[in-house]
Amino acid sequence: MNLRIFILLFLIQVGIMNGQKRIRDYGIYIGVLKTGKFNAITDVEGVSVGHETLVEGDNIRTGVTAILPHTGNIFQSKVPAAIYIGNGFGKLAGYSQVKELGNIETPIILTNTLSVPAASEALISYTLDLSGNEDVRSVNSVVGETNDGWLNDIRGRHVQQEHVLSAIRNASSGPVKEGNVGAGTGTICFGYKGGIGTSSRVLPKSLGGFTVGVLVQTNFGGVLEINGAPVGKELNTYPYRDKILNDADGSCMIVIMTDAPLDARNLERLAKRGMMGLAKTGGIASNGSGDYVIAVSTNEAVRIVHTSDRRFNTMELLRNDEMSPLFLAAIEATEEAILNSLFMASTMTGRDGHQIEALPLDEVLPILKKYR
Amino acid sequence: MNLRIFILLFLIQVGIMNGQKRIRDYGIYIGVLKTGKFNAITDVEGVSVGHETLVEGDNIRTGVTAILPHTGNIFQSKVPAAIYIGNGFGKLAGYSQVKELGNIETPIILTNTLSVPAASEALISYTLDLSGNEDVRSVNSVVGETNDGWLNDIRGRHVQQEHVLSAIRNASSGPVKEGNVGAGTGTICFGYKGGIGTSSRVLPKSLGGFTVGVLVQTNFGGVLEINGAPVGKELNTYPYRDKILNDADGSCMIVIMTDAPLDARNLERLAKRGMMGLAKTGGIASNGSGDYVIAVSTNEAVRIVHTSDRRFNTMELLRNDEMSPLFLAAIEATEEAILNSLFMASTMTGRDGHQIEALPLDEVLPILKKYR
Amino acid sequence: MNLRIFILLFLIQVGIMNGQKRIRDYGIYIGVLKTGKFNAITDVEGVSVGHETLVEGDNIRTGVTAILPHTGNIFQSKVPAAIYIGNGFGKLAGYSQVKELGNIETPIILTNTLSVPAASEALISYTLDLSGNEDVRSVNSVVGETNDGWLNDIRGRHVQQEHVLSAIRNASSGPVKEGNVGAGTGTICFGYKGGIGTSSRVLPKSLGGFTVGVLVQTNFGGVLEINGAPVGKELNTYPYRDKILNDADGSCMIVIMTDAPLDARNLERLAKRGMMGLAKTGGIASNGSGDYVIAVSTNEAVRIVHTSDRRFNTMELLRNDEMSPLFLAAIEATEEAILNSLFMASTMTGRDGHQIEALPLDEVLPILKKYR
Amino acid sequence: MNLRIFILLFLIQVGIMNGQKRIRDYGIYIGVLKTGKFNAITDVEGVSVGHETLVEGDNIRTGVTAILPHTGNIFQSKVPAAIYIGNGFGKLAGYSQVKELGNIETPIILTNTLSVPAASEALISYTLDLSGNEDVRSVNSVVGETNDGWLNDIRGRHVQQEHVLSAIRNASSGPVKEGNVGAGTGTICFGYKGGIGTSSRVLPKSLGGFTVGVLVQTNFGGVLEINGAPVGKELNTYPYRDKILNDADGSCMIVIMTDAPLDARNLERLAKRGMMGLAKTGGIASNGSGDYVIAVSTNEAVRIVHTSDRRFNTMELLRNDEMSPLFLAAIEATEEAILNSLFMASTMTGRDGHQIEALPLDEVLPILKKYR
Repeated sequence: MNLRIFILLFLIQVGIMNGQKRIRDYGIYIGVLKTGKFNAITDVEGVSVGHETLVEGDNIRTGVTAILPHTGNIFQSKVPAAIYIGNGFGKLAGYSQVKELGNIETPIILTNTLSVPAASEALISYTLDLSGNEDVRSVNSVVGETNDGWLNDIRGRHVQQEHVLSAIRNASSGPVKEGNVGAGTGTICFGYKGGIGTSSRVLPKSLGGFTVGVLVQTNFGGVLEINGAPVGKELNTYPYRDKILNDADGSCMIVIMTDAPLDARNLERLAKRGMMGLAKTGGIASNGSGDYVIAVSTNEAVRIVHTSDRRFNTMELLRNDEMSPLFLAAIEATEEAILNSLFMASTMTGRDGHQIEALPLDEVLPILKKYR
Repeated sequence: MNLRIFILLFLIQVGIMNGQKRIRDYGIYIGVLKTGKFNAITDVEGVSVGHETLVEGDNIRTGVTAILPHTGNIFQSKVPAAIYIGNGFGKLAGYSQVKELGNIETPIILTNTLSVPAASEALISYTLDLSGNEDVRSVNSVVGETNDGWLNDIRGRHVQQEHVLSAIRNASSGPVKEGNVGAGTGTICFGYKGGIGTSSRVLPKSLGGFTVGVLVQTNFGGVLEINGAPVGKELNTYPYRDKILNDADGSCMIVIMTDAPLDARNLERLAKRGMMGLAKTGGIASNGSGDYVIAVSTNEAVRIVHTSDRRFNTMELLRNDEMSPLFLAAIEATEEAILNSLFMASTMTGRDGHQIEALPLDEVLPILKKYR
Repeated sequence: MNLRIFILLFLIQVGIMNGQKRIRDYGIYIGVLKTGKFNAITDVEGVSVGHETLVEGDNIRTGVTAILPHTGNIFQSKVPAAIYIGNGFGKLAGYSQVKELGNIETPIILTNTLSVPAASEALISYTLDLSGNEDVRSVNSVVGETNDGWLNDIRGRHVQQEHVLSAIRNASSGPVKEGNVGAGTGTICFGYKGGIGTSSRVLPKSLGGFTVGVLVQTNFGGVLEINGAPVGKELNTYPYRDKILNDADGSCMIVIMTDAPLDARNLERLAKRGMMGLAKTGGIASNGSGDYVIAVSTNEAVRIVHTSDRRFNTMELLRNDEMSPLFLAAIEATEEAILNSLFMASTMTGRDGHQIEALPLDEVLPILKKYR
Repeated sequence: MNLRIFILLFLIQVGIMNGQKRIRDYGIYIGVLKTGKFNAITDVEGVSVGHETLVEGDNIRTGVTAILPHTGNIFQSKVPAAIYIGNGFGKLAGYSQVKELGNIETPIILTNTLSVPAASEALISYTLDLSGNEDVRSVNSVVGETNDGWLNDIRGRHVQQEHVLSAIRNASSGPVKEGNVGAGTGTICFGYKGGIGTSSRVLPKSLGGFTVGVLVQTNFGGVLEINGAPVGKELNTYPYRDKILNDADGSCMIVIMTDAPLDARNLERLAKRGMMGLAKTGGIASNGSGDYVIAVSTNEAVRIVHTSDRRFNTMELLRNDEMSPLFLAAIEATEEAILNSLFMASTMTGRDGHQIEALPLDEVLPILKKYR
């Protein structure tokens, strides 16, 4: 494939050429809280996102998405974090150290199921090579994945270290590309083309004024609901309606960032709410799902320096009883991020001629109108 | 209060006098799967439910609900079980032994927060007194609760052992009373009167034909959605809309029974889906919530006899990849059970003159019509 | 039984009349770290312990032990805490809220298995009645237990609320009674009389100078080792040596207090080390064991006030990489506390004439000498 | 380095040239249960172990150890399994899917910390390439590790896929090489050279006659005890004895196999006992430890076929109350496996001239004699 066609395809994939709009652009507002400036995970200060999209030949439809909690050396300045396992049929790397120590020390990488080792390897390379990390001999790579094996030649393991490093280098603040991009290139959601989606919420000042940003890689199933409207039921595209078994399978990766100063315990609680947002879109966390929620506090006051002469970390932590509005924010932003991934994805043909249609807006919008 | 007024009040509380109907009676169908005969947890064969409702004087508005997985000696013939903690700000008794051994050996009791000890004590008495249990010296009482302290003089701890034993004795199969009854007598849900609700789903034969029944004690908050319609938003009765803090607090107990032959691991997975059903009603599992899901398999082939000459239990267990339809069933039945608790509850005045209105159907039904 | 005989029996039980000595008094030093002043949990500043011992008639051999992390209103000034479940065949009350919120809001009560409800009820009464708690409507009682049903008429449930309140009132700092006292009155350990034991460790200043105190209620089995010497093997009193099944059953409650400023996550890690101390005595955490470790930080700088106008808790927390010496301290103090419970217990006759011998020092000390 | 010297070094490393003996060969018997034929994990029928040892130049001292639960296609015929996290400062791959589904579908690989991605990649390659797996698009690699970065140029990531595949191909039943071999090539334990160790226990027929085999990769610290003798204390080689901080750090991988028919829940309980065996050697599971225990049932009657026309798995599972003797067996075999890793390791010089001495038997054996 020559470069020209590649670029063209790329632009189509990321929804720039075909005029796709996010759900909010249709006047559909999820929840009751306000969004941040970009309605994206990057509304959380310091967070950046980078994609590397692999669309090559007939069979390669995959990619990498990198989410960085801050722009410094994350290994030396770790961020409090927690991972909640909604349904653990997945290969996420890094769980146990995050659970034990309550922090993350690398960028977060999303990719396809069989490319987790390549991404982990790349995160190790990235970390070892950073200035200041010359003595580092232990790195806890955090890599999430979903299985894009229907559209993508996943057995070919086409993601290379360089792709991961490129996604990290590409990371920027500001608007985030959604749909068939990065780790969402080849994913399927509710039977339609899924992908990357993002959204954010900002609490009113009276509730702390914190921002919660969410980014998802959607590859799961269930009975699709859009802002409460029973789209899957109306389109008759849900599983189990006949004798069809288990076509709800798939996975969802949910990354939540917040500038609220939270420790790992409250981040785990926040992470659990990600699955509640997923539930509102009609997802059922089927047996075959690898549904993971990674929650991170980017607040500088709770960073953990890797080595210190001090015996103590002095931290100003949000009280338990201030958590509820953040929970609502995480639920709303997750729901909207998932819907954005559907609205921004476009029809994709891949491996063995498999084709997955984009959400059919001509049918969906009337349903949304009918159900308001 | 004389007996006559008591009975009258009781009848009003349980919704018999005021013509309340379940959500399905309004032509509103939650989800895509079929219900069982009674659309109740008792559709799972062998399951019985009993209530003891305490409405006395101005300040006592509480009660007890008992759910029995089978009608035999549960201690001698234990049932596989798991408990999932959605949000653990609660006082549920019995968690760790269920987690360790994977079974339940008493009826499940629901009551108010400060009456857990009384209910635990009663379950011990009940178990020790059963014929065949003369040598029993260890009993793992399973008791859930929510806090009815706004309407009920909870500090008075009016639930006595005899009330619990009475709820167990009252237990019957068939239709289940809902609303202001038993452990739901004094509870509040989304700012309206909550209570007990129930629902069930039956899988098609092609998916195994199993029944999943759910019973809930609703006492939680969030932004109410009814079958996808944004009722809380329309009625402007949700928390955080202004500077109001944390009025989403509360709790929900969810009990799931199924005749599918599941072990504790898959029951824990099933239990997790209860929280996804709760999410679909707009619940957010606020900081102050004690949200617990107890899941039990009533299938005789997986019962665990207390003592045995045999070294092994021979069990026919459902395969992991058959779980997804059960997950969907649990989500749907939980959502509908919660909504039934709201539709079947009636306005209640209690402690210090506090009054909680029933869901205002005159306002809600038009909203549901608007959003179909 | 008249008062005189009761007092006499009591004195015998607590080992005052029969000249019992702690293991260290025999020149046997467990581990490499130093003990605190009393070699007791009360070496942690502010901690107090109270017992209520019930030895009545032929069949009542039980009691209550209360451990208070500080002398103030614990509900209003909660302490960071975690509970680790070594083996969950037990009835401990309070687990899930401690896990969710990371703190404890009542004294910790130990008693017998079937008296957990009575003790929970008493903790609620205690808390509701405290000055300043007039509006409290939710109390998370923390109660641990082991099963003293061999020596004690446990089915009689002889522990009353007043006994629990009395144990709390009795609580004092300074030396702690061990052996057949309080919740240890009727317990059995490695086939010998167990009971209450305590020990402590103080870290050198260079490692922070923190104190770790442990109190245990021993009622478990295995192949007894005393400071490495294979006592159970030598005395041929271990389970499975023949065809005997499961006489290793039983339980152990371990309470760890420290003045190190730890949050719940690191306290859970500390709690896990309690089971490693138990392992060193030869315990195996048998199937029937309810082995729980409760870890609490008493440090004032990490207390959590119940209500606050502030949105944040400012905390100075020990860094992860400072935890290892505390782990060693917890292991050593648990091992020694268990051994103290055996050395300080005395032969007890109870229910149905069952008699359990104290550790036979005349046989054990030569073994210890042989193995140094 | 030429081949001759390489082979020589290799033979020395694996203890063949220097006449090393296992602890039992010195007449030191750990515990009370009998061992299997080889006193090795391979005493569990069908289990095989393979090593690939990398000792090259001055700086490469690492390797790979593969443990296979049976000789068939493990992906198509999965084994029930559980992983217990003793202390999670590690990079083990595969945790969440094992937890969710209760089984393992690849060989278990042990290697160094930074080579987990290479090993995961190799397990994917291995699985995709197996006959019958042509349609496999999802593989849950299980890889454990410890950090050999003191002796090994770990940053160089010298383990390649081919080394891992070679270790798998090398796997055989019968005696297992111990000491400086495979994944134990560069590890350090209690300040001495650690490595691979193994041991087994066979229950008497009256207790079921099951075999429990353990293999460990030892790289951790604490205050060494050998069969109860305080070797670390006597040799004054323990951490914290002065102002030295945290030199107890390190990790231990423990793999437990048994032919007892256990489900994942009881395997998790069995896995927990691995940490109790580690505790008996004086390990403290320091902050920096990645201590993981993987437990597997190899019993054919509990295998899980990948795809099936049947809806159910019929399983004959050991009852909970038969577990205790297995717990004792796991504790004893883990303790002895760790000690074997020390006894069978030999002095190693590696990266930057770092040298780690073997356990000084000339000093240790007199201590063991003194303490019998």
